[in-house]
Amino acid sequence: MKTLINKKTPASAWLTTELSAVTSVIENHLKNRHRAVNDVCEELATYSGKMLRPSMVLLSWKTVSQEGATPESVRVAAAVVELIHLATLVHDDVLDDAELRRGKRTINSLHGNEAAVMLGDYLLSSAFHLCSTIQNQKLNLMLGEVTSTVCAGEVVQLFHRDNIDLDIDSYYQIIHDKTASLIAASCEMGAVLGNGSDSNIQTLKDFGNSVGTAFQIKDDLLDLLGEQIEIGKPAGRDLEKGKLTLPIITMLSDNPSLKPLAQEAIQNRDRETLCNMLEAAGSIQFSFDVVGQLVDCATQSLQEVFGNDTSDQLCRLAEQLKRVI
Amino acid sequence: MKTLINKKTPASAWLTTELSAVTSVIENHLKNRHRAVNDVCEELATYSGKMLRPSMVLLSWKTVSQEGATPESVRVAAAVVELIHLATLVHDDVLDDAELRRGKRTINSLHGNEAAVMLGDYLLSSAFHLCSTIQNQKLNLMLGEVTSTVCAGEVVQLFHRDNIDLDIDSYYQIIHDKTASLIAASCEMGAVLGNGSDSNIQTLKDFGNSVGTAFQIKDDLLDLLGEQIEIGKPAGRDLEKGKLTLPIITMLSDNPSLKPLAQEAIQNRDRETLCNMLEAAGSIQFSFDVVGQLVDCATQSLQEVFGNDTSDQLCRLAEQLKRVI
Repeated sequence: MKTLINKKTPASAWLTTELSAVTSVIENHLKNRHRAVNDVCEELATYSGKMLRPSMVLLSWKTVSQEGATPESVRVAAAVVELIHLATLVHDDVLDDAELRRGKRTINSLHGNEAAVMLGDYLLSSAFHLCSTIQNQKLNLMLGEVTSTVCAGEVVQLFHRDNIDLDIDSYYQIIHDKTASLIAASCEMGAVLGNGSDSNIQTLKDFGNSVGTAFQIKDDLLDLLGEQIEIGKPAGRDLEKGKLTLPIITMLSDNPSLKPLAQEAIQNRDRETLCNMLEAAGSIQFSFDVVGQLVDCATQSLQEVFGNDTSDQLCRLAEQLKRVI
Repeated sequence: MKTLINKKTPASAWLTTELSAVTSVIENHLKNRHRAVNDVCEELATYSGKMLRPSMVLLSWKTVSQEGATPESVRVAAAVVELIHLATLVHDDVLDDAELRRGKRTINSLHGNEAAVMLGDYLLSSAFHLCSTIQNQKLNLMLGEVTSTVCAGEVVQLFHRDNIDLDIDSYYQIIHDKTASLIAASCEMGAVLGNGSDSNIQTLKDFGNSVGTAFQIKDDLLDLLGEQIEIGKPAGRDLEKGKLTLPIITMLSDNPSLKPLAQEAIQNRDRETLCNMLEAAGSIQFSFDVVGQLVDCATQSLQEVFGNDTSDQLCRLAEQLKRVI
């Protein structure tokens, strides 16, 4: 598994080492007495990308903690949120009929939808099992709550497919639930394990929320604008599945008269026409600006409270979202 | 939701009342701020049948407990195991392309596979969330472990589809993992919450294991022999999906020369020919006998240790499995 940061500053060297330990926790926990289960789990390596969520747990812990050595519970919590994330990816690929992820074949394309559904369930259960080993009631409750929120968000998103009237508040609620909530919970878990004050825990949770929201908007933009070679998966999946994202929603809100034309392009899955309309309306630039503003506000609030080397590193993680593809 | 026991003995009146309280716990816990989620959850009523697993939790608690009133934690644990069971049913129906369950349309047939996958995930997460509210570390660990076992069992079963050489030990391992383990854990959880001794907890867990194994063999027999009108769903699903079950495995083990003919019937999904072969080989009767023996051993061991009104009721639940369709 690759780590997000390769710059060899002291803090990033620490993160690289810790993420490698987190990977070992995941691999050891998923080991099963059944070969069939192990064989499918091995193919999950493809799914793990930059390990954003474990990085958030680890760095949030380090931001508030007074301890020197990283306790095993922090690595385990980091492994837990990655397992939840992996489970959602495996099931998302079933929902999206996806053939490729990060340029490699998905579990559903290799083993069929059924194995992918069951593997996702196995990952979800394994995450909860692993979380229970930390023996921290607060963490178990947080994990149960956030995972329910993620799944409810996905259900709501499904029911809004092809809903041209999806409003901006509902869109933000969906991306909060399905994406930002888990990134926020990752920060919160790290801070809780670091015995942060309530106010420090809230600051880190808010940071995770803003970064998670920016992350999803950026991800949606990549899907709309990107090419397969750049993003490691076929672009245009959201349009294929009738998912409305920020540029479309803002364009239609600002220019209601464009609705019939946009609806036609969406129904025809005509990405080129849609992108031209969005460019002309300035909605693509607006969406990138929203990502930038979310990141700027999040990093500023974080630095005002902490301003240490580790919070600095959290900010650099967030700032990577500002790069225009 | 219907309850398993309608005979108005004092113990069964207690169970009926408690199961109704468990249903309320489930309904309250699943209430969501999103209408889309609530709407799909409402259709789950179809999925809840005899509530075997919650009954096992409640009766196991009552078998060992000295307390008079049922603590809320016991009802919550009963709700938790039912939620896990409901999640597996919703996902099983996706895997089986099932149109009907208990004579009503399945979630996947009403809302599509995607909504059903996500609803299953929501139920799994909600179960873990609800379990965390009991604030009992042991229960959280047990739930994580058993749910991983159930999912791993389903993965292994998938990989054995159309495997004519599936041996009896592997079959028993699969049905233990995917079915008996959760029924055993239901008994164990009830006994743990009733502060049973280690040995009493083990006795109830063993009882659950045997009953769960008998339950799955019987379920497989119903699928092989039954008619849609009797079992509320199209029969022959196992054969459709290439799942080998006890009668087939024992027939082939006793009569290896029948393998080519059996394989042909399995490949052609020809249930009539297969059933005739199984009848002639005595494998159907043998499988019903195994169910009977498992139930007899389980009830005898339980009564030797407890022999009270509540263990009696557990035994009556188990004995219902002995009825020949």
